[in-house]
Amino acid sequence: MTKRAALTRLSLAAFAIALHAPTISRAQTLPERYRATTDRIIAAALSDSAAYNRVALLTDKFGHRLSGSTSLEHALDWIIAEMTRDGLQNVRGEPVMVPRWVRGEESATMVRPRPMKLHMLGLGGSIGTPEGGITASVLVVTSFDDLADKADQARGKIVLFDAPFTNYGATVQYRSRGAIEAAKVGAVAALIRSVASNSMQNPHTGAMRYDSTVTQIPAAALSVEDAAMLHRMYDRGDPVVVNLRMEAKTWPDARSRNVIAELVGSEKPEEIVVLGGHIDSWDVGQGAMDDAGGSVAAWEAVRLLKQLGLRPRRTLRVVLWTNEENGLRGANAYRDAHAAEMSNHVLAMESDGGVFAPKGFSFDGSSEALPAVAAIASLLQPLGANEVAPGGAGADVGPLTALGVPGLGLQVDGTRYFWYHHSEADTMDKLDPREVAQCVAAMAVMAYVIADMPETLPRRAPR
Amino acid sequence: MTKRAALTRLSLAAFAIALHAPTISRAQTLPERYRATTDRIIAAALSDSAAYNRVALLTDKFGHRLSGSTSLEHALDWIIAEMTRDGLQNVRGEPVMVPRWVRGEESATMVRPRPMKLHMLGLGGSIGTPEGGITASVLVVTSFDDLADKADQARGKIVLFDAPFTNYGATVQYRSRGAIEAAKVGAVAALIRSVASNSMQNPHTGAMRYDSTVTQIPAAALSVEDAAMLHRMYDRGDPVVVNLRMEAKTWPDARSRNVIAELVGSEKPEEIVVLGGHIDSWDVGQGAMDDAGGSVAAWEAVRLLKQLGLRPRRTLRVVLWTNEENGLRGANAYRDAHAAEMSNHVLAMESDGGVFAPKGFSFDGSSEALPAVAAIASLLQPLGANEVAPGGAGADVGPLTALGVPGLGLQVDGTRYFWYHHSEADTMDKLDPREVAQCVAAMAVMAYVIADMPETLPRRAPR
Repeated sequence: MTKRAALTRLSLAAFAIALHAPTISRAQTLPERYRATTDRIIAAALSDSAAYNRVALLTDKFGHRLSGSTSLEHALDWIIAEMTRDGLQNVRGEPVMVPRWVRGEESATMVRPRPMKLHMLGLGGSIGTPEGGITASVLVVTSFDDLADKADQARGKIVLFDAPFTNYGATVQYRSRGAIEAAKVGAVAALIRSVASNSMQNPHTGAMRYDSTVTQIPAAALSVEDAAMLHRMYDRGDPVVVNLRMEAKTWPDARSRNVIAELVGSEKPEEIVVLGGHIDSWDVGQGAMDDAGGSVAAWEAVRLLKQLGLRPRRTLRVVLWTNEENGLRGANAYRDAHAAEMSNHVLAMESDGGVFAPKGFSFDGSSEALPAVAAIASLLQPLGANEVAPGGAGADVGPLTALGVPGLGLQVDGTRYFWYHHSEADTMDKLDPREVAQCVAAMAVMAYVIADMPETLPRRAPR
Repeated sequence: MTKRAALTRLSLAAFAIALHAPTISRAQTLPERYRATTDRIIAAALSDSAAYNRVALLTDKFGHRLSGSTSLEHALDWIIAEMTRDGLQNVRGEPVMVPRWVRGEESATMVRPRPMKLHMLGLGGSIGTPEGGITASVLVVTSFDDLADKADQARGKIVLFDAPFTNYGATVQYRSRGAIEAAKVGAVAALIRSVASNSMQNPHTGAMRYDSTVTQIPAAALSVEDAAMLHRMYDRGDPVVVNLRMEAKTWPDARSRNVIAELVGSEKPEEIVVLGGHIDSWDVGQGAMDDAGGSVAAWEAVRLLKQLGLRPRRTLRVVLWTNEENGLRGANAYRDAHAAEMSNHVLAMESDGGVFAPKGFSFDGSSEALPAVAAIASLLQPLGANEVAPGGAGADVGPLTALGVPGLGLQVDGTRYFWYHHSEADTMDKLDPREVAQCVAAMAVMAYVIADMPETLPRRAPR
């Protein structure tokens, strides 16, 4: 959750005071009307470890799931079969062409001051190096400003951005555009300190990009430890030379799918509440918290409602988007394929911040809708998941919220998220069965009430 | 610190009450006699980052330092030169023959239910596998009792001990004798869950042993994550097959050295206060906290006293022991080489628990000496390092305390010690310059007062 979101977070108490102009008739009465049902949903979600077990089975069975990989497509086949077995409706894969970036073999080896294999991961989308790699002196900088100051030293060098982690948004820029800025001043490759808030020598990958006006150079992340070591050596005046080898290559686009399953509404089946996560991951670890957990939480929320015989008035639609990590092709394809029914989308909800203890939701929509959302969130007080704050709802629902669809993003305890994110350490053991069940409960309650309440949330004008 | 130690920990207040039979005349007056001097020592230690910088320089320059490696011997050469440059006296390396175990190439690959390279480290002292490795089904057990229950299933299998970390002493037994117990029931190799209290896919090595009456089988540690994954698969009834390849081999013993440097006493130069750490490490990470940090803290403590012109009555002797990790040959060689002067050893102090924020000392010696030690430790109250409790003083001083030499072990905040210990993540960035300086101060104060006070600590009878 961002600092700004935290400052504007609304507790139910604040909501009660703020509710001077309810835009949904009797929004205040939503909790009392739905509490018995939602308490039942919560109790059922917390009664077993079904969701955790399903995330574990999925991630153990298929491992990580990068766009264009067979493991992703096999996972999608399995999910479609399981959703069908669950008795969900209209289960299908909707075609999406996705980028196919393949890492191949890669290494970063310190050549001077002494030989040592570094802990590295190429960044997603990077080009490879020539065979034999690139061997060059390392110029260490701590920011783009620092690079500008040292621009005359950068030609022919490998630039290492050793920028300390502050927050993801601020620090990720070195991953996103480090290669562009380094190439502009003549560098032959870019390295970054992994974007991570803690480290045990696990490098973190993630998407990078090029600019059509600037030479493409290879880019990779070092572990926090190795970046710090090179930085210390550089500060001592030791000559630091690194050999970077990467076979990374982008192949022609591959076929993938957004997976969709529904619980069709009892009264207004054409009106749709979307809830989901992204089913692709980076090609390391298990992609358990990013984002098998969010995908399964949404899926399990709807399966649970079905199991409880709770069919809301509107249709609940689980969407497991493909290719969030390196393209957002799934999210855009969903928007395009469903353009005709976009005005009937009453909510788009995503979980993509890990399935740790849920705290509440960020809301991307009309401020007039906020009191009703906060009122519904108050039903999650037993889980401590009743905080609602304005903010982004998730990358995959972004194309929908841009069109005015109200968006919700599940917010969880993010203490350790950037310890594991995009690294080998994003694995099942980091998740807790009860916390995963709480995430299922939070999504199920939000989705159910918004799909069942008499009115819909007021929409915001398209961006 | 052990639970038992914590329960018997003496604060100065408790000491004041307990002091019914002082065995050193005016032990109570030690603090007032030395406070001005020790405050000066503490202030000087905390005035810069000299110790941290020296640990960083050592570990960056030479990396890890396994017994029998050239990196260890090059580090020793450099340390001897630096100690000489510091103006310390009688700087020398004392010869020690050490085991030479070489890891070589190694891998553990899951073959079924799906191919995946596991995160592994062979255990120190293990034999290798035949070329091509050992491929076998995995039997998962959680304890030696569990292995006994499943003994009839173990023949021809790779046994994985997936024992959760409780405390080091309890959990390390699977690393130490897992291969023995697995071989007894016919297993062809042993794997363990890394002995670690947290993990980001960093496997942890460490010493294992064989029993001359049991077949030797290869043994390796998996990351906590991979052990948990194999365990989940095993519990589901999935057939789990692993290929283990290890080139590990023990070569003939190699030459190494204990490094010694002194500040010769002004009045009783023949009486000796030993302080040190072990300079060898495992062959991963930088061996920064285990135990370059402890080695440098002891060294810097004496250098600092010299710099301050504080020459105590007795001799201060820095000993950097070699081969603590896989043999303790340095500790035993020191005892044997100095047998003639053992009765003149008035204290043996070690730091081998990391150089995090110091809490105090464990004391291995006569209970009659404890009040005086606690009185001196009270001088460390400004650092919060004044706790003293009975307990082991360290592996390297063990051969000395067994002979009755009073022993002290620096105790520090151990919260994260077993996150990094014996893994690639034992690196400089985990240390804090101020905390390292505090460790230097704690060792310097203890060593100085015990080397300078009129009487010596009463000895315990040899074990």
